[in-house]
Amino acid sequence: MEVRIAVSKTNKYASSSSGDTVEVVERPNGGVSVVMADGQSSGRGAKYISTLVVRKVITLLAEGVRDGAAARAASDSLFTERKGKVSSTLNILSVDIQTNTLVITRNNPSPVLIAYHEDIQVLDEPSLPVGIYRDTRPLICEVPLEAGLTLVMYTDGLVHAGSRIGQTMDVRTVFQSMLDSEDPSPQLISDALLDHAMKLDQGRPADDITIAVLRVASHTGDSIRRMMIRLPLDKPFLV
Amino acid sequence: MEVRIAVSKTNKYASSSSGDTVEVVERPNGGVSVVMADGQSSGRGAKYISTLVVRKVITLLAEGVRDGAAARAASDSLFTERKGKVSSTLNILSVDIQTNTLVITRNNPSPVLIAYHEDIQVLDEPSLPVGIYRDTRPLICEVPLEAGLTLVMYTDGLVHAGSRIGQTMDVRTVFQSMLDSEDPSPQLISDALLDHAMKLDQGRPADDITIAVLRVASHTGDSIRRMMIRLPLDKPFLV
Repeated sequence: MEVRIAVSKTNKYASSSSGDTVEVVERPNGGVSVVMADGQSSGRGAKYISTLVVRKVITLLAEGVRDGAAARAASDSLFTERKGKVSSTLNILSVDIQTNTLVITRNNPSPVLIAYHEDIQVLDEPSLPVGIYRDTRPLICEVPLEAGLTLVMYTDGLVHAGSRIGQTMDVRTVFQSMLDSEDPSPQLISDALLDHAMKLDQGRPADDITIAVLRVASHTGDSIRRMMIRLPLDKPFLV
Repeated sequence: MEVRIAVSKTNKYASSSSGDTVEVVERPNGGVSVVMADGQSSGRGAKYISTLVVRKVITLLAEGVRDGAAARAASDSLFTERKGKVSSTLNILSVDIQTNTLVITRNNPSPVLIAYHEDIQVLDEPSLPVGIYRDTRPLICEVPLEAGLTLVMYTDGLVHAGSRIGQTMDVRTVFQSMLDSEDPSPQLISDALLDHAMKLDQGRPADDITIAVLRVASHTGDSIRRMMIRLPLDKPFLV
């Protein structure tokens, strides 16, 4: 088996800084975690908040702290620093090699979509962002890591795409159409979703958008672990 | 312009844990840093050390600490924890958007290769790993971020490839042959280097190998920032 992850990220139009932060880090006992946060409002202030939340989580994960406990700590920490006045969404997606599972931790009203082959399940139980209340708990879902599993998680910029022109982004339909095609790569799925959102926003995203797609493939070419990054440097899309 | 980074990583043959750690993180003021460490010896002990060093560095970078100061802090920290008995190599490669430069920080006897178009320059001034002496300083090199720039950095597993059969890996020649081909992607360069090493090691790497290749392209397709990860799950190449 091979786990493949794609992350795509764009800034709100004409904004030099994204309020979203996403990092992918090694887990101390094997596997990786994708940690994604969307700070309240936009620009530098939001970036500071989402960075704070993501840093807190990855520091704890590196120490072997469980995902749920790391999310709670990030919430308490933001609550303490900002006295409950600022919120951030938080998603943690972990490939846990020890348990051979995928652990999905959610402090985000936006759902996570998960599919076994072509059948999509929507994880949309009500979930609060971190930082507003004392003792906010995340929703945690753990599923076996098996070939044919595909997962999509995103910040709310994706669902709000099109709102400027009174249209709505149907994430599930775009995801389903991608799953119906021949073995789509996570990058292809992520790009299709972002492309759809950009069209609804007429090429000028109304909000920061971050999308992470994970797919478990049955085959593996070799035993090399790989990472690729593309970072466009032209303004106004710097960070 | 667009910065493209590829990281490839393999474990020592029949070893379930790599002593190398590499992470790519956002810089607080824009851009990214690639932080790579190779802990002394191999297996779990080495992994613990390289993780410790990388975590220390990325925590400090996240706080806005400069690369050189972060490397010195990581050295002092390891020296204090292990009383100078354990070493680790450390490389930091930073795309600094504020200064529009590439900052190369090296505490590693292995060189870093840097090319403007096809002309390779080897950064091989003597450099000590971190953790052995009090107050070890890194070598720092800063170059303008411009199209046509390609950089290769790696852990010593790459240069030691072939030693089992009395052969040596000529990194520069393989890199030069890749640069002479038509606009090679960083992934292609990284794969060519690793492939060459694997052949010299007859498919059974004598040491953990990590390679990071960065390339600055003049053109950029769109303004989307992307990351892709491939994580093979078949033993014995878990971490």
